[in-house]
Amino acid sequence: MAKDKKQPRPKAETPKGFRDYFGAEVTERQQMLEKIAEVYRLHGFDPLETAAVETVEALGKFLPDVDRPNEGVFAFEEDDTWLALRYDLTAPLARVAAQYRNDLPFPYRRYAMGPVWRNEKPGPGRFRQFYQCDADTVGAPSVAADAEICGMLADTLEAVGIPRGDYIVRVNNRKVLNGVLEVAGLSGDDKAHERGIVLRAIDKLDRLGEGGVRALLGKGREDESGDFTKGAGLADAQADVIMGFMDARRADGPATVARLRELVSDSAIGQDGVAELETIASLLAAQGYGPDRIVIDPSVVRGLGYYTGPVYEAELTFEIFDEKGRPRQFGSVAGGGRYDDLVKRFTGQEVPATGVSIGVDRLLAALRAKGRLSGATRGPVIVTVMDRDRMAEYQRMASDLRHAGIRAEVYLGNPKNFGNQLKYADKRQSPVAVIQGSDEAARGVVQIKDLVLGAKLAQDATLEEWKSQPAQVEVPLSDLVAQVRAILDRHQ
Amino acid sequence: MAKDKKQPRPKAETPKGFRDYFGAEVTERQQMLEKIAEVYRLHGFDPLETAAVETVEALGKFLPDVDRPNEGVFAFEEDDTWLALRYDLTAPLARVAAQYRNDLPFPYRRYAMGPVWRNEKPGPGRFRQFYQCDADTVGAPSVAADAEICGMLADTLEAVGIPRGDYIVRVNNRKVLNGVLEVAGLSGDDKAHERGIVLRAIDKLDRLGEGGVRALLGKGREDESGDFTKGAGLADAQADVIMGFMDARRADGPATVARLRELVSDSAIGQDGVAELETIASLLAAQGYGPDRIVIDPSVVRGLGYYTGPVYEAELTFEIFDEKGRPRQFGSVAGGGRYDDLVKRFTGQEVPATGVSIGVDRLLAALRAKGRLSGATRGPVIVTVMDRDRMAEYQRMASDLRHAGIRAEVYLGNPKNFGNQLKYADKRQSPVAVIQGSDEAARGVVQIKDLVLGAKLAQDATLEEWKSQPAQVEVPLSDLVAQVRAILDRHQ
Repeated sequence: MAKDKKQPRPKAETPKGFRDYFGAEVTERQQMLEKIAEVYRLHGFDPLETAAVETVEALGKFLPDVDRPNEGVFAFEEDDTWLALRYDLTAPLARVAAQYRNDLPFPYRRYAMGPVWRNEKPGPGRFRQFYQCDADTVGAPSVAADAEICGMLADTLEAVGIPRGDYIVRVNNRKVLNGVLEVAGLSGDDKAHERGIVLRAIDKLDRLGEGGVRALLGKGREDESGDFTKGAGLADAQADVIMGFMDARRADGPATVARLRELVSDSAIGQDGVAELETIASLLAAQGYGPDRIVIDPSVVRGLGYYTGPVYEAELTFEIFDEKGRPRQFGSVAGGGRYDDLVKRFTGQEVPATGVSIGVDRLLAALRAKGRLSGATRGPVIVTVMDRDRMAEYQRMASDLRHAGIRAEVYLGNPKNFGNQLKYADKRQSPVAVIQGSDEAARGVVQIKDLVLGAKLAQDATLEEWKSQPAQVEVPLSDLVAQVRAILDRHQ
Repeated sequence: MAKDKKQPRPKAETPKGFRDYFGAEVTERQQMLEKIAEVYRLHGFDPLETAAVETVEALGKFLPDVDRPNEGVFAFEEDDTWLALRYDLTAPLARVAAQYRNDLPFPYRRYAMGPVWRNEKPGPGRFRQFYQCDADTVGAPSVAADAEICGMLADTLEAVGIPRGDYIVRVNNRKVLNGVLEVAGLSGDDKAHERGIVLRAIDKLDRLGEGGVRALLGKGREDESGDFTKGAGLADAQADVIMGFMDARRADGPATVARLRELVSDSAIGQDGVAELETIASLLAAQGYGPDRIVIDPSVVRGLGYYTGPVYEAELTFEIFDEKGRPRQFGSVAGGGRYDDLVKRFTGQEVPATGVSIGVDRLLAALRAKGRLSGATRGPVIVTVMDRDRMAEYQRMASDLRHAGIRAEVYLGNPKNFGNQLKYADKRQSPVAVIQGSDEAARGVVQIKDLVLGAKLAQDATLEEWKSQPAQVEVPLSDLVAQVRAILDRHQ
């Protein structure tokens, strides 16, 4: 009985929120990551690759906007231990820095690249697995480490193909933010809620403009759809401090710093933060990173709660068109900052650390939009099959081409319908097809078809039409490799 | 109250059965994979990267030696769907081939490289996450596809650095095995148990020798420890058929095939299998793959139940020493075969497929044993810090070196103890240290220390001893890059 029951067929579907990458999508990412790794290595960073899996205990809860345990990650229990897929590359680094603290060289400069997983509602363009590419320095208290990473970030963007002028690295300092909040009377434990609203409002300056931010600092703001967001309820004098803070970015570098210093003159931590920003600015200037590449910008907040000092992000400033055809700035592709407490979780000892994470998919999308990707491998030369029983000879032709470094393969589907072979070559974007029927074999020649020239006919041409095209030549078999090479060179 | 309770610190531990890869371990693997990908691409294979996660339904149960559902994988439920980490790269390929069957070019030649996860008891050298590197052709019924992959496998091993003579690719055919079992009277549904014992016995020929296999075919075998393994209980005449089959590999290529043909003369499927082996042999011979690289070997079984035709594996034939210092052959590093039913699970239509999987970690271990790995990046030049307030100038030196393509960094730890800076340089295997105190700065010079020459003194030398070594030179700051370059070239 049970045997007669038909098992339902499994569905062939990518799991919800995940995706498959084909061909050039894979090689283009790989090539970009390799260029990034080169810059990182040049700066003395060493690779680290941890497993996809960490204990939930080690991961902690440092996901942006997630307060519930295990929320936001893919977790499972094994032998009484809860494990989870890593949600970023920073948490595993903190674990490694603690675990190998007696063996690693400190300061430990490491880079890491690989997928991370977030258990979130998938949305358009938002996936549950995506690549990150990080560089961090662990064990360096000096803000010289932060400056180094900001400079390296600028170098990295240029190395992958974002020209100077199309990006800007913005630097701020959480201590300055904290100082401003202190001056505005928002530093008490009981003011955490208001601080949250204020930080989020600052973060939205580019989107909402000054009026919108001012509204959020006060009573609240109604958006175009009529939805009302409750504000922080600050008094005017308090709001003035915050707005003056953001206004400081209008000035150029030294003037911005001077203005900030003035604003936080009553806050020790604020003064400390401004001094750090000044140091960073002077270190970067000494290395030739001008304000066309890196600027001090008080509006940079960065969402993550664990940042304790400098924060920075890279934004692409060129315009793209959104789904509605409206031009907009491409926006942020990387961000990071100083997090001095992540390693301390494990060891109890403070270990200063700072680092950046590049959003690999966003940077790839930017390079694609700018026409800067060339990762597509040229399609292979296709040796077509006219006589099934001469397969060994066709294989030898492909083998000869490969020995000359030319990508080549024999058609391995059912050879009966020659049109299908040409359709296949078309789908593979093959530059050249090699054809040898029994007649050609008897005469010791091959037909070589330039498919790039012949592309427009390829879809429905019969074999005879095909052969009559001028893009096709007959050469002695011994000239096969040279002739194919000549065609490939022509289309280089 | 609750606030006073101290949270226990999380343990900084790699989860059980997983591991971390540092520095050269990462780059060496990456470089090997890139060499493999080059060979695959040259043969017309395109990259595919699926997510780490599949639905349990799509994965199916094709793990070797695992019969229980969800056993052997890491699974978790999300929104009423059971998901699992992929345990190999073949199952996702079957899903992709079914899902995109109307869009992909067929035959679909694809390669994939990446981690896979197995929920097994971890053991020494056995990890729950490891890399595979696969190439498969989907939709090619011809054994020319199998031959192509065998040839490509030989090319791949040579490309990564295994010299000819140090490896052998062995080819067999499940149909021949089935024919032999049929001739031996073991083809009925009720003989599945005996067939399993016989196949496992054949697989152990190299380890147990003919006597051991013969015993397993009959009553059973007692090993050195006294443990008894029950045999298949075959009659002598039946066992003779199986032993004659294995004996066939003693002959050279054509004689082996002739002997096999004779053995399975009463089995249609066996004859079919021998004809396929003959075709494979002739296709490979035509491309110049001699018996020094690829051989027909009837003892190849391959564990996986889903193989339906040719099976193949690559073995490294050089000796290494095991943990007890005894020499032994390195053994298998790759294997594969034809599996015509995996895509059919999804679509109901038979889609022929064949492919190989390379055990990345084993192949890396082999290359390491042969001294063929050179993935280690040279340590960075370290610009030491003598005066904290001249950090900008040190950064500029490092920046100048990097602009010349030289890996360089400024020491970012606490600079107070100069010995620590030298220890750090030693740990990083830095070739050169750059030193500039206020005295040198005033004179516009730098000290450049050749650390490769000075290595033996580096551990405990004080600054003054260090400076007096001949491996150290003083040059004008403007000669910094040229002088460092000269030292690096000397140690190339």
